[in-house]
Amino acid sequence: MAKEKIEPELVEHSGLGRVKLDFAPSNQSFKVPPGVSVFDAASWNGIAIDSTCGGHGTCKKCKVQITEGIVPISRLDIRAFSQEELKNGWRLACVARATENLAITVPAMTTRPKAATVGVGRQVILRPAVQKRYIELSEPTLHDQRPDLQRLKDAIDDLELEVDFKVLQILPTILRSSNFQVTVVIVDEQIIDIEQGDTSENIYGIAYDLGTTTVVATLLDLNTGTPVAVKSMLNKQQPFGADVISRISATMLDESALDKLGTAAKQTLNELTQEVCAEAGINPSYVYEIAVAGNATMIQLVLGVNPEPVGVAPFITTTQIWPTLLAKEFGIEINKGARAFTFPSLGAYVGGDIVSGILATGMDRDKRVRLFIDVGTNCEIVLSSADTIVTTAAPAGPAFEAASIKCGMRAAEGAIEVIKIANDKVELQVIGDVEPQGICGSGLVDGVAQLVSCGFLDASGRFIDDATAQKISEPLAKRLTTLENGERVFILHGDRSDPKIYLSQRDVRELQFAKASIATGWKLLLEQLNVDPDEIQQVLLAGSFGSYLSPKSAVEIGLVPKIPILRIVSAGNVAGEGAKMVLLSQQEKNGALSILNQIEYVELSDRKDFNDKFVEQLSFPL
Amino acid sequence: MAKEKIEPELVEHSGLGRVKLDFAPSNQSFKVPPGVSVFDAASWNGIAIDSTCGGHGTCKKCKVQITEGIVPISRLDIRAFSQEELKNGWRLACVARATENLAITVPAMTTRPKAATVGVGRQVILRPAVQKRYIELSEPTLHDQRPDLQRLKDAIDDLELEVDFKVLQILPTILRSSNFQVTVVIVDEQIIDIEQGDTSENIYGIAYDLGTTTVVATLLDLNTGTPVAVKSMLNKQQPFGADVISRISATMLDESALDKLGTAAKQTLNELTQEVCAEAGINPSYVYEIAVAGNATMIQLVLGVNPEPVGVAPFITTTQIWPTLLAKEFGIEINKGARAFTFPSLGAYVGGDIVSGILATGMDRDKRVRLFIDVGTNCEIVLSSADTIVTTAAPAGPAFEAASIKCGMRAAEGAIEVIKIANDKVELQVIGDVEPQGICGSGLVDGVAQLVSCGFLDASGRFIDDATAQKISEPLAKRLTTLENGERVFILHGDRSDPKIYLSQRDVRELQFAKASIATGWKLLLEQLNVDPDEIQQVLLAGSFGSYLSPKSAVEIGLVPKIPILRIVSAGNVAGEGAKMVLLSQQEKNGALSILNQIEYVELSDRKDFNDKFVEQLSFPL
Repeated sequence: MAKEKIEPELVEHSGLGRVKLDFAPSNQSFKVPPGVSVFDAASWNGIAIDSTCGGHGTCKKCKVQITEGIVPISRLDIRAFSQEELKNGWRLACVARATENLAITVPAMTTRPKAATVGVGRQVILRPAVQKRYIELSEPTLHDQRPDLQRLKDAIDDLELEVDFKVLQILPTILRSSNFQVTVVIVDEQIIDIEQGDTSENIYGIAYDLGTTTVVATLLDLNTGTPVAVKSMLNKQQPFGADVISRISATMLDESALDKLGTAAKQTLNELTQEVCAEAGINPSYVYEIAVAGNATMIQLVLGVNPEPVGVAPFITTTQIWPTLLAKEFGIEINKGARAFTFPSLGAYVGGDIVSGILATGMDRDKRVRLFIDVGTNCEIVLSSADTIVTTAAPAGPAFEAASIKCGMRAAEGAIEVIKIANDKVELQVIGDVEPQGICGSGLVDGVAQLVSCGFLDASGRFIDDATAQKISEPLAKRLTTLENGERVFILHGDRSDPKIYLSQRDVRELQFAKASIATGWKLLLEQLNVDPDEIQQVLLAGSFGSYLSPKSAVEIGLVPKIPILRIVSAGNVAGEGAKMVLLSQQEKNGALSILNQIEYVELSDRKDFNDKFVEQLSFPL
Repeated sequence: MAKEKIEPELVEHSGLGRVKLDFAPSNQSFKVPPGVSVFDAASWNGIAIDSTCGGHGTCKKCKVQITEGIVPISRLDIRAFSQEELKNGWRLACVARATENLAITVPAMTTRPKAATVGVGRQVILRPAVQKRYIELSEPTLHDQRPDLQRLKDAIDDLELEVDFKVLQILPTILRSSNFQVTVVIVDEQIIDIEQGDTSENIYGIAYDLGTTTVVATLLDLNTGTPVAVKSMLNKQQPFGADVISRISATMLDESALDKLGTAAKQTLNELTQEVCAEAGINPSYVYEIAVAGNATMIQLVLGVNPEPVGVAPFITTTQIWPTLLAKEFGIEINKGARAFTFPSLGAYVGGDIVSGILATGMDRDKRVRLFIDVGTNCEIVLSSADTIVTTAAPAGPAFEAASIKCGMRAAEGAIEVIKIANDKVELQVIGDVEPQGICGSGLVDGVAQLVSCGFLDASGRFIDDATAQKISEPLAKRLTTLENGERVFILHGDRSDPKIYLSQRDVRELQFAKASIATGWKLLLEQLNVDPDEIQQVLLAGSFGSYLSPKSAVEIGLVPKIPILRIVSAGNVAGEGAKMVLLSQQEKNGALSILNQIEYVELSDRKDFNDKFVEQLSFPL
């Protein structure tokens, strides 16, 4: 049974746009979708906040001070703080939802925690597979001729230890050069290294989200469970194609491409590794375990396993479960004996990143009806209800990556990420607050949603004629025009004489096809579990793109079921969060593997009713 | 309880010299000490003879035809052959002792055996850790999307299979290029390779005796248990010193020596590997498991583990038990996933070669009082009685390797290996039947034994004076002389004017010290188990040198206890035989490991009574 959870206070917010959080004393700023808890936002970005209860509001350790902006006082805050403190802006980070721009001061950690809060309100008891034991051995004599390894094992007799060959090779030398005082590095029950003297304070792991587009690495202090550095980078495989299918195709066309793609991914991972270690000032040889969450294609490519069968019908992966590997198999240069946990995949298009997301969101342990959507070129959908979990993959095409959009661009500086149309005006939010260069996925969804909402797009997704537009709003009607090539467009930036950035009729169609595919996916899953849309208690929008979708717009275009906006949660980089969890706890690692047995994969591509359902979902809900 | 064994017929022989065995149709010749069974001699040299009972005389399959020389008809032969056959020289190889030169025709193998006879009359049921499974898989469809590995595992559902990462890397490609018809190579329950089509006929292992002086490799067909090629070679570490101590010293004097010694050993093993595969016409990639028996120093050197603590008091090894390694850690280029079993060591000077020897001789399962002596620079001694086994190491010095002997040389062409003195004559047997170049260890033992026997050496080991010599034998007295440097010598080859090869007083002293050390070792072990020398039912002389000692001479100089010569058995290369056994049977592999728990290691170097006993043993028994 899942424990009754206290949710972050449900503070009303618009469900649109971004809020900016400035953290002190680290002096870091991040933009997040409104409604995210301060604790999650900090944790996802590598800022450690005290906590031992996992956001259940019982430990009352996650105290932060809001120095700018307003966070309403919650029921739990009243129990945790004095009136004076509340007046000074002190709040519990786990229940403080960020609905506007905030400045937050995070106190230094005071205790060595026994648990860490990661993912979406998941508390993880700290029991990493990695542990260090400092031992002082008696020196051998003619009356005590125990072999070196036996002497060492006898000193750690609560574990049934095995040993890496590489450790045996250095064992006699290192024991004697350190007067038989050494620190033994153990992963599970395997000795992977031995270090001179007492190094037990230095024990790290790195969690990787190996995305098709973006790769994120989080360096974790395994003694405290706190993130000490986070870095992200574009996957260096990008030149081989934007999505998994184009990368698989590359390997089919060119024999050497598999090797090149593997090398590119390895370089990406290793550069990030060196960056997080440098930022935290940590010797990479103190990193002993990594966890990698990625889709099936990304994992097969980085490991040099031919992904062709994943890419063509009947879509077959090489294996669900990967054996424990050495980190160096991923090209990662840390401790030579460091182990790598690879998240298992559920199917060719529901990979380890989703298993990691299920773990991070607790979909496998929560009785509520919850819908998880990782929006992207390939969209993964998970529906849980009581003890049953079903999942599927819906091919959404490149609309959300904005690759096939006329004025589309990646979510980088200059991209329009939020669009609001109200009071005859168009308001744009641009990444980096610079001159807009194009529209990214979340801007596309906002734009179409707002155009439907103001009536410029009809339910079928067609732009209205000029006359009707004039009746609705004269200023907005000026933006609706027909280009020389005959295409109807709505101008976002520039004017009719110089339409710099616009949404075209074809762009709207692209998005319609994408959202119809996703909506068909979750409709079929709801039918499978015999659940009505309004029974859904939470929709989790995940992935580097999904997390930045405006919940309001997502509802308006029908990408997610029509439920109250407060129930739609931006889940952040859940793949990376799950990877952190398995490093912090052996139990969570076992949990990740047992998800395979709890979940049913539904293949859509051979369902006869798919096309009918798809057509039903093409129009916009008005 | 050990099964009652039928020993090879105890045919009287002199206990001195060598007999030559010519095998047809393979046209191979070998010299062995008299008394060895034809079956063992063939098996040790890679000639396969049918057998399923392990020399118990029950299967009656090991039929050979003696075409030259005489082998008495045994009780078992009468039951196995017709009068006509017996007249034509047919004998059972397992009970046929070679006491004179023989020509032997070995029939082709008729059955695929379920057991093999190896070691000293040990029958091993064939259950190698390596197995192959040919499977024809159904191809995946949209309704059967099992991952490749799962499909493969489902087809072999009697095993709980794990898989090597390297196999996963090739799995999707190889399944599809072979129409899902593949042979899976399994060691224990680990998939180590996968091959196109049906290759189940090709399954091999190699057993290595990694000696300080000589390295022997035996290629085994694991389907039939038969040896298909045997090769031996000098250890390429020789330039670093003749014995383990000089090699350990080399690593202490020069930092790069450990690496060089490792490389030299690896090259030795790999050259032998390529040679046995070439001789048998076997692709090395069909060799999936190896077993290596060597002393603790040899193993640490080849694996790049600093042996210094083994070489200096208090004599500490790195580990008793080595993890299962890849064969490539030994520098051996066979199948990339091939596994290596390394025999565990009992102590710094009773290594894996001795554990292998104990396994091959069945010392661990035989209730009789048996004494095992591996004669060499470092001499290992094992004594078993009922359920108790004790072992020790005695430093014998370089006498047996003939390194410190004036006219000494290795047992190579030109070496005097047998010396008989009778009827006023000296009879020499020279390896290769050429002009003698020097004396090897067995010749030294023979020579001293014969000189004691004829009275030219007194009990204290001193040459008699010329006058006494004249009285004993005038012709022999001519050979006894004093060199210009004042040393008394007995000339073996040449004469007083040109004494080419001789035994000197100092040589005799060297041998006395060596044999005293060994005799002290077994005396102390006998005391430990409260056993009288005449209770010993068998003495096994082992090792590449020990096997060639004349039993008669060994008794005469007091190197072994004074028991009937027929109870002194040349055990052959028992280290190599044990290595064969563990490849043929998982049970024997477990047996090798369990020897560690059955045996007690007695350290001599800190025993107060050692010196007194040693002095007692210096003189010769007259």
